[in-house]
Amino acid sequence: MLKLYIGNKNYSSWSMRPWVLLRQAGIAFQEVRVRFDSFQAGSQFKRSIAAVSPTGKVPVLEHGDLRVWDTLAIAEYLAETHADKALWPADPGARAHARSLCAEMHSGFGALRGSCPMNIEARLADTGALIWRDQAGVRANVQRLVDMWSALLQEHGGPMLFGAFSIADAYFAPVCMRLATYALPLPPHIADYVRRVQELPGVQAWIDDALAERDFLDFEEPYRLRPAQG
Amino acid sequence: MLKLYIGNKNYSSWSMRPWVLLRQAGIAFQEVRVRFDSFQAGSQFKRSIAAVSPTGKVPVLEHGDLRVWDTLAIAEYLAETHADKALWPADPGARAHARSLCAEMHSGFGALRGSCPMNIEARLADTGALIWRDQAGVRANVQRLVDMWSALLQEHGGPMLFGAFSIADAYFAPVCMRLATYALPLPPHIADYVRRVQELPGVQAWIDDALAERDFLDFEEPYRLRPAQG
Repeated sequence: MLKLYIGNKNYSSWSMRPWVLLRQAGIAFQEVRVRFDSFQAGSQFKRSIAAVSPTGKVPVLEHGDLRVWDTLAIAEYLAETHADKALWPADPGARAHARSLCAEMHSGFGALRGSCPMNIEARLADTGALIWRDQAGVRANVQRLVDMWSALLQEHGGPMLFGAFSIADAYFAPVCMRLATYALPLPPHIADYVRRVQELPGVQAWIDDALAERDFLDFEEPYRLRPAQG
Repeated sequence: MLKLYIGNKNYSSWSMRPWVLLRQAGIAFQEVRVRFDSFQAGSQFKRSIAAVSPTGKVPVLEHGDLRVWDTLAIAEYLAETHADKALWPADPGARAHARSLCAEMHSGFGALRGSCPMNIEARLADTGALIWRDQAGVRANVQRLVDMWSALLQEHGGPMLFGAFSIADAYFAPVCMRLATYALPLPPHIADYVRRVQELPGVQAWIDDALAERDFLDFEEPYRLRPAQG
């Protein structure tokens, strides 16, 4: 059976992508959670993950003797081995377009990722308003998302970016979580897409697990001293 | 015909990857060079590339009405549309492994990329020695390359990372150029691989064009005030 190594569900945006993809596509897998105690060399996390990952990072997909690291390579592997699931759009041009978007996400959107770390449990609207006021890079990243998503939703008619759910939606799911946590301003049709992504059963299952985690990690919390009162 | 938009050959490491891939695989294409005058908004480069790239970056592959941006998406598109060229390794496990490496390169190796920008025409051994002495991040990046390449060359027997030339070698070609320019210390069998990559006809053609370019760009030259005397 496929085995997916992931980090904390509240914080690990890279882990979320393949987990949501597997779950939403209905592909059976075993989840192995490696808790983020620290990212320092010698931490429990680094020692545990070193056994399966040459980069010392999550996620890693294990399939028998094969280990695939990095979300994009995992997505391609799943698309190849589960052709019946149509994880990429079927049309070659749409597929190339979807891959371009995912690759752009993979190495880009640095301002948004740096200033608005994923934190599903948190509600940081005031922090988000300050970020929005002061950080042109974040505003530019969000504008790019709005432009990209608007064009796709118009071209393919929704409800997901390429019509039916695909790797592209799984790839942007953590971004949707950030947009919600920091309450960044969005046009209504984009806010609707963000809500639809959050309502996907695979995403909802991840959110539920993240909320149940209750594992507050200082080094993942630039904006809070303690979790919200529950 | 395929059309590939690229930047300056001496400096544009991202442009080099798909260009070398196309040339080395013997796939016909038209090259469109968009000179790097500046990366500021309103520069000639940004205004030219905006017409074909939603990210404002090179490379972009154009195929009829379709535009594919980002090197990984371009590589996947070429692999799909030129299945006879075997651009990825044929074995599914090796292919997943190759994709993992390329994805790791795509978002990683930040210290090496930041401190040792590609500059094919330059010879910066002294600069490289200082970088090597002072920057643990660069040393760690190179160690990772040595570990990764050593394992692959042993497993597949060379001469390229997965035996025959594949996307993975094209992906690491700009890294090989950096290692040479800054004369970073390498074990002999890795220095041999770097040399073999530089001797690939597709890479040699790129190097020849880069050397003929003679277009010294201050903002790409953190270590030089003027080009070397020729």
